[in-house]
Amino acid sequence: MAKINEHYLKLQSGYLFPEIGRRVSEFVHLNPGKKVIRMGIGDVTQPLTPSIVKAFKDGVEEMSRAESFKGYGPEQGYAFLREAIAKHAYQDNGIEIQADDIFISDGSKCDTGNIQEIFGNDNKIAICDPVYPVYADTTVMAGKTGSYNSGYYDGIIYMPCTSENGFTPDLPSEVPDLIFLCFPNNPTGTVATKEELKKWVDYATKHKSIILYDAAYEAFITEEGIPHSIYEIEGAQKVAIEFRSFSKTAGFTGTRCAFTVVPEELMAYDNEGQAHSVKKLWNRRQSTKFNGVSYPVQKAAAATFTEQGKKEVAETIEYYLENARIMKKSLADTGYEVFGGVNAPYIWVKTKNNMSSWNFFDKILNEANVVGTPGSGFGPAGEGYFRFSAFADRQSTIEAMERILKVK
Amino acid sequence: MAKINEHYLKLQSGYLFPEIGRRVSEFVHLNPGKKVIRMGIGDVTQPLTPSIVKAFKDGVEEMSRAESFKGYGPEQGYAFLREAIAKHAYQDNGIEIQADDIFISDGSKCDTGNIQEIFGNDNKIAICDPVYPVYADTTVMAGKTGSYNSGYYDGIIYMPCTSENGFTPDLPSEVPDLIFLCFPNNPTGTVATKEELKKWVDYATKHKSIILYDAAYEAFITEEGIPHSIYEIEGAQKVAIEFRSFSKTAGFTGTRCAFTVVPEELMAYDNEGQAHSVKKLWNRRQSTKFNGVSYPVQKAAAATFTEQGKKEVAETIEYYLENARIMKKSLADTGYEVFGGVNAPYIWVKTKNNMSSWNFFDKILNEANVVGTPGSGFGPAGEGYFRFSAFADRQSTIEAMERILKVK
Repeated sequence: MAKINEHYLKLQSGYLFPEIGRRVSEFVHLNPGKKVIRMGIGDVTQPLTPSIVKAFKDGVEEMSRAESFKGYGPEQGYAFLREAIAKHAYQDNGIEIQADDIFISDGSKCDTGNIQEIFGNDNKIAICDPVYPVYADTTVMAGKTGSYNSGYYDGIIYMPCTSENGFTPDLPSEVPDLIFLCFPNNPTGTVATKEELKKWVDYATKHKSIILYDAAYEAFITEEGIPHSIYEIEGAQKVAIEFRSFSKTAGFTGTRCAFTVVPEELMAYDNEGQAHSVKKLWNRRQSTKFNGVSYPVQKAAAATFTEQGKKEVAETIEYYLENARIMKKSLADTGYEVFGGVNAPYIWVKTKNNMSSWNFFDKILNEANVVGTPGSGFGPAGEGYFRFSAFADRQSTIEAMERILKVK
Repeated sequence: MAKINEHYLKLQSGYLFPEIGRRVSEFVHLNPGKKVIRMGIGDVTQPLTPSIVKAFKDGVEEMSRAESFKGYGPEQGYAFLREAIAKHAYQDNGIEIQADDIFISDGSKCDTGNIQEIFGNDNKIAICDPVYPVYADTTVMAGKTGSYNSGYYDGIIYMPCTSENGFTPDLPSEVPDLIFLCFPNNPTGTVATKEELKKWVDYATKHKSIILYDAAYEAFITEEGIPHSIYEIEGAQKVAIEFRSFSKTAGFTGTRCAFTVVPEELMAYDNEGQAHSVKKLWNRRQSTKFNGVSYPVQKAAAATFTEQGKKEVAETIEYYLENARIMKKSLADTGYEVFGGVNAPYIWVKTKNNMSSWNFFDKILNEANVVGTPGSGFGPAGEGYFRFSAFADRQSTIEAMERILKVK
């Protein structure tokens, strides 16, 4: 008799974004004439830029001729892309990451979930509260937790991030083995300073823990001195895996390309305390369960590192950041307490009068026809907060803010 | 302290294809002048056909304009592709599979590995011997096996497929909960008749087992009456998941698109014997750990179902099948005992004088500069056999056969 993975039964209702989708569909169905502005899912709206489109099409063109056709590529990604990333995203910034440490994938969502497979179920996982729900959900699916109790899964170490601690987690009293950190943070838009990250790297070094560092939004950092990579911190290569993505950086949410950095020096341990290369484990996982990213997509991703590509990508990022500035000012002027939006495409808003996050969701959907994301969907400490994404187009952004201004 | 997934330590050496790659690289390095013909990894060589290329480029073009730009798509795949598959691959052949049962992915390798996540580790898995190594390796990684003992992992039910049983497995005496079947078979090229498959569907129905049916090579079936889908068998929708891919059908090994069919009626059970929808579990897994396939790739895949696309794809398949016929005849004329190659792009050869598979690999690499795949790499019952793929171009295929003719 085929038996299910019982851990799935612990999962709470729908994954956050499908639930939002369901409520929005219902609203649209009942209100066919109304124009809904979507600032819920953090999805980009600006098209792929000309250099990227050209490289993408050139890649397809190569696939149309026998002499340049590409079959299976390396599971780890093509050298041209791994080398471009190593140079432009790391070495040019003084970080000694090698092409060989970089694993190309079709998304950070996959990688941050799949990475759990190479670590045993006896690891204690720490995650921020609130945070991107995939970390907790995939921890549950893997069987690394107990059951669900009033907002929390037993066995996960939650690190509350609220306005009291400036949305940056404190070192937990119980020592975790794997620590998910995400800066610039989704959903709060908070960044970590070098000192803050150094604290974590030192903590992980002391306890032989591993930091799973999600830097999907690093391209949105505008302030000087804020680290774009955890590897800017000395010693981090021995304790951290970094996840990055082309999704938000270059508008690849529908094109699909990301990468994970697993440095040579990073070790994890077996039951007898013997060290094993994490990179070898991840390489084995990827070689066995993954077949690489579409060749033309990798060509497109590589184009983001050309001089022209960099310029175009920077312009799109600036476009979204200008949205964020408009939103932040407007929401603050409307009397909301507002966080984030300076080094991140997310605005994190405190609801008024302690309204619950989902009530606020329904209210602004019904009264302003604007979709945002309930803060409580990211964890119980997000209750009473709300996330707006700055990825809409300019006109919609301005219109959404005008509509919210009128919500009572 | 971060602890590894100890199950990885049970895995034997490299995954088969990287090991082949290593030996070939070494040979090429030591013999720079020699032209190596690759018939090892089952990788296609013929370019994407014109209709596919056009749809692929059109998809990229849509990504270049804000009004047609696509961000995150449905994790399950776009409706246009799911509907095309349901119609052309199933409904037109009288099989009642709905678009909603179809989950688009970036590869069957991923799907056949990832599917294990939704089933508990208390399931007994049956796999053929020899077979595509991913089934066993991912079963080990998931923790569903004991350790490795002389070619076999404890806890897996192996079903030998040799010339004695016509390379079709017998029903195992110990009842498995999950049964991997692959027809047309990789590596042996064998197909299953309707009667054969009915035997399995009845067996799975009786025991509430689930068949994981890998039909990646169904497009190569040439003989009338051989089922292309397990759903041609009555009752299969209650006991089987089917995996299919555009990789071999339409030359997508470097483009990446596949799909998995999980029918509405398929159930698995919890510890208390209560039935759960497998489709819901898989949907939850995919929504949480996957973000859909690149939009232009899905457009390209859909083009294979247009009238012109179908014609082009059929021509490419026929090209490879003609290779297979040439190889089969030549190898038989050279005195080898030869199987497969009629309904599959693989030729399964018995080595002469009981030579081991890896010795034969080294011999034909050194003497004929041809790369094949050692049968023992697919499981111990493959020892003494060797797989040639029919995916080379015509000229290389003919040349490889001429060279092998001269090997003593």
